[in-house]
Amino acid sequence: MTHNKKDKGNKLVIIGGDAAGMSAASKVRREQPDREIIVFEQSRYTSYSACGIPYFISEIVKTAEELIVRSPEEFRNKYNINVKTLHRVTNVDTKNKKVKVFDIGNDTEFWEEYDQLLIATGGKAFCPDMEGKDAEGIFGISTLKSGIKVENFIETEKPKAAVIIGGGYIGLEMAEALLMRGLKVTIINRSEQVMATLDPDMGIKISDAIKNLGVTLYCNESLTGFKTVNNRVVGVTSDKRTITADMVILGMGSSPNTDFLKGSGIQLGVANAIKVNAQMQTNIPDVWAAGDCTETFNIVSQKPMYIALGTVANKTGLVAGSSIAGEETLFPGAVGTAVCKICRYEVARTGLLEKELDAMNIEYVTGIIDSKTRAHYYPNAKDITVKLIAEKKSGRLLGGQIIGEEGAAKRIDVLATALTHRLTLQNIIDLDLSYAPPFSPVWDPVQTAARHLIKKI
Amino acid sequence: MTHNKKDKGNKLVIIGGDAAGMSAASKVRREQPDREIIVFEQSRYTSYSACGIPYFISEIVKTAEELIVRSPEEFRNKYNINVKTLHRVTNVDTKNKKVKVFDIGNDTEFWEEYDQLLIATGGKAFCPDMEGKDAEGIFGISTLKSGIKVENFIETEKPKAAVIIGGGYIGLEMAEALLMRGLKVTIINRSEQVMATLDPDMGIKISDAIKNLGVTLYCNESLTGFKTVNNRVVGVTSDKRTITADMVILGMGSSPNTDFLKGSGIQLGVANAIKVNAQMQTNIPDVWAAGDCTETFNIVSQKPMYIALGTVANKTGLVAGSSIAGEETLFPGAVGTAVCKICRYEVARTGLLEKELDAMNIEYVTGIIDSKTRAHYYPNAKDITVKLIAEKKSGRLLGGQIIGEEGAAKRIDVLATALTHRLTLQNIIDLDLSYAPPFSPVWDPVQTAARHLIKKI
Repeated sequence: MTHNKKDKGNKLVIIGGDAAGMSAASKVRREQPDREIIVFEQSRYTSYSACGIPYFISEIVKTAEELIVRSPEEFRNKYNINVKTLHRVTNVDTKNKKVKVFDIGNDTEFWEEYDQLLIATGGKAFCPDMEGKDAEGIFGISTLKSGIKVENFIETEKPKAAVIIGGGYIGLEMAEALLMRGLKVTIINRSEQVMATLDPDMGIKISDAIKNLGVTLYCNESLTGFKTVNNRVVGVTSDKRTITADMVILGMGSSPNTDFLKGSGIQLGVANAIKVNAQMQTNIPDVWAAGDCTETFNIVSQKPMYIALGTVANKTGLVAGSSIAGEETLFPGAVGTAVCKICRYEVARTGLLEKELDAMNIEYVTGIIDSKTRAHYYPNAKDITVKLIAEKKSGRLLGGQIIGEEGAAKRIDVLATALTHRLTLQNIIDLDLSYAPPFSPVWDPVQTAARHLIKKI
Repeated sequence: MTHNKKDKGNKLVIIGGDAAGMSAASKVRREQPDREIIVFEQSRYTSYSACGIPYFISEIVKTAEELIVRSPEEFRNKYNINVKTLHRVTNVDTKNKKVKVFDIGNDTEFWEEYDQLLIATGGKAFCPDMEGKDAEGIFGISTLKSGIKVENFIETEKPKAAVIIGGGYIGLEMAEALLMRGLKVTIINRSEQVMATLDPDMGIKISDAIKNLGVTLYCNESLTGFKTVNNRVVGVTSDKRTITADMVILGMGSSPNTDFLKGSGIQLGVANAIKVNAQMQTNIPDVWAAGDCTETFNIVSQKPMYIALGTVANKTGLVAGSSIAGEETLFPGAVGTAVCKICRYEVARTGLLEKELDAMNIEYVTGIIDSKTRAHYYPNAKDITVKLIAEKKSGRLLGGQIIGEEGAAKRIDVLATALTHRLTLQNIIDLDLSYAPPFSPVWDPVQTAARHLIKKI
């Protein structure tokens, strides 16, 4: 066991070298050029786009390297950030301000002291505890390493049929990728609709879209087991059927990587994500947390939630770095904006769902409209369906969901802005949004939706 | 002279049957099913998309009829709105509450009384008072009729070279249309840059883009005359040269159609546009005005401005109709959002220009960033350049300008929303905008621009 100790200084230790951790490290470096910064990262990679993995698997991105924003070498050489890859932190001793580190390459352990600590360990893909789960051909998608494994498997094993467990973002993006690689794709989805982050009336439209693309979709159906031969997957069983498959993708959601914090005194909250304030400080002095391992404050519900999103990871990393460097930036939270493409379809959402509003006893109205992404007479005007949810008594926007084709999804950004700043349907109607025939109907679809829904207020 | 008089009732007369007039008529009809509504429209058409004319000329829209949202017959038969096309109002007598109408088809005149009057006469393309201006081959683009004339001219006369006077929205959209029809295109632009609605540092980028497309662009150059042979245009002269052309498009801006209001007592303002309050009422009781013939309140400068935009025409028409029907909707004004496509380039703008801020003695900072429309590694990630202007002391956004390729322009909508609701650069950075690799970098380009500019605050 090595025990690195600096006599003096103000040493910053960061656990996790992806979006949140490296955003923070870079920010601290910009503000404090001479500070000692050590980053422990359990993989070989830093600062890569996890969201880009499906596009590497589909081969529209040619190499895994393209997904890497900055390499460990670049951080070390150009930014003087001491990145130690293949180092996993297994324990945090907040009383003595040190972390226990497992050096994977050398199979050794040591304690590293810190003056300030940032935990940015991200999330991990959920894996069901079933026999055969470690068989060849079964993959979770959460790290670049896992993405590379999948790509290699397709390249060398040439699987014909894949089953994807779960119809969330990763499930749908992986469906696109595998369709593009020529596989037959089946999705097994536990609930009634894919995309549980949308209301059922919109989710059903996505289910229809997915079937249009040639995906076999089984909803209301749960994985019950893996079928393997010689430790290699040959199919899955659900509560309703057996499906042959030479490849299985687990898209069953993710959870924060916080198991190693047990006994540290660091307070966890929703889904065992780390509780933080707006400066990304934990309950323990000199310990910050950021990214997918933390709770996120939901601006609309005014309650903490758990979401794992690259945007939030980058923002909270920046705020944590800012706070560590002594600045006073605050992270105001998020409204739950997310977007997803599957082949020609685009899906976007922001704000609260009907079921969340029901649970909060908020009286609301909802409306759905169909429009076009361009002027109706302009070539390639694509379908767009917009659902809005507003508070009944005030008309204040509470949520928005969009399904459509090219040009549809990014319109969610106006609704996300409206949500954050508590705009009403009338405010949305009054917005001076851009119009020319190649870009929009004269009333943007989000405004058409607001005009439709305001009649119910 | 006919003198129509109804004994009783509450007769609404509307002058102008395009976006503003027919939005108002439709709204009144929805609220007051039995009310008498007469619309006088000088052309043969109602409710057409003037913004769509360049796309009809380029032939990507096949027929002029596709640009018509609702025909006069449909308004008459389905909505019981008495639309009289080929009727031009030449005088308004606000004391006796009647308008003088010229029946173009029958070459007769009559007076029509009103209980309430809405003026929605739109704008007219500026035409320089020069010899030869009425020669064949010289066209302004403002009405559907003018668009049809241009299309017919290209079809039958097969012109080879066109000169466009003016590098504003219409000039650029017509350049695209004529390039698509195979013409050689020259633009003569009076000022240093095309698109005077952008700052010079962004305008120069559009000038470069236009040249890339094969357009010959002469800036700092003014039209001095038309060259004609047998009343047919063969070229134009500028203060610097003579250019051969068998077709000339006038894109020199437009002005409100308000000349016929002289002596009516109706107050005019900026650029002779009609002064209105937030309910679209003029200074004369029972007289409303809406659309391109009115002033528009600029929410950012808090001053009236003149802009001719389909979005504002539709909105103010709706508010006028609402007010006429006794409701209390208000039009809060606009922030000057506009968007334009020329071949593969997209241009968008909102808010105030540097020169406007200089004139108002507001201290501001500006910054320009280059980014991509998608994740850097995603195929077809296109260039996007974003300029932001913010108030120096508060960081409040004052303006935004975007130039880029596919997927760039519509991002202006977040900035337009931010402007309307007085958001700061920090507010923009904090927005929970949507991200997935096919749609955006993890920091949306408008946020990257805000992060860049906030350093100067």
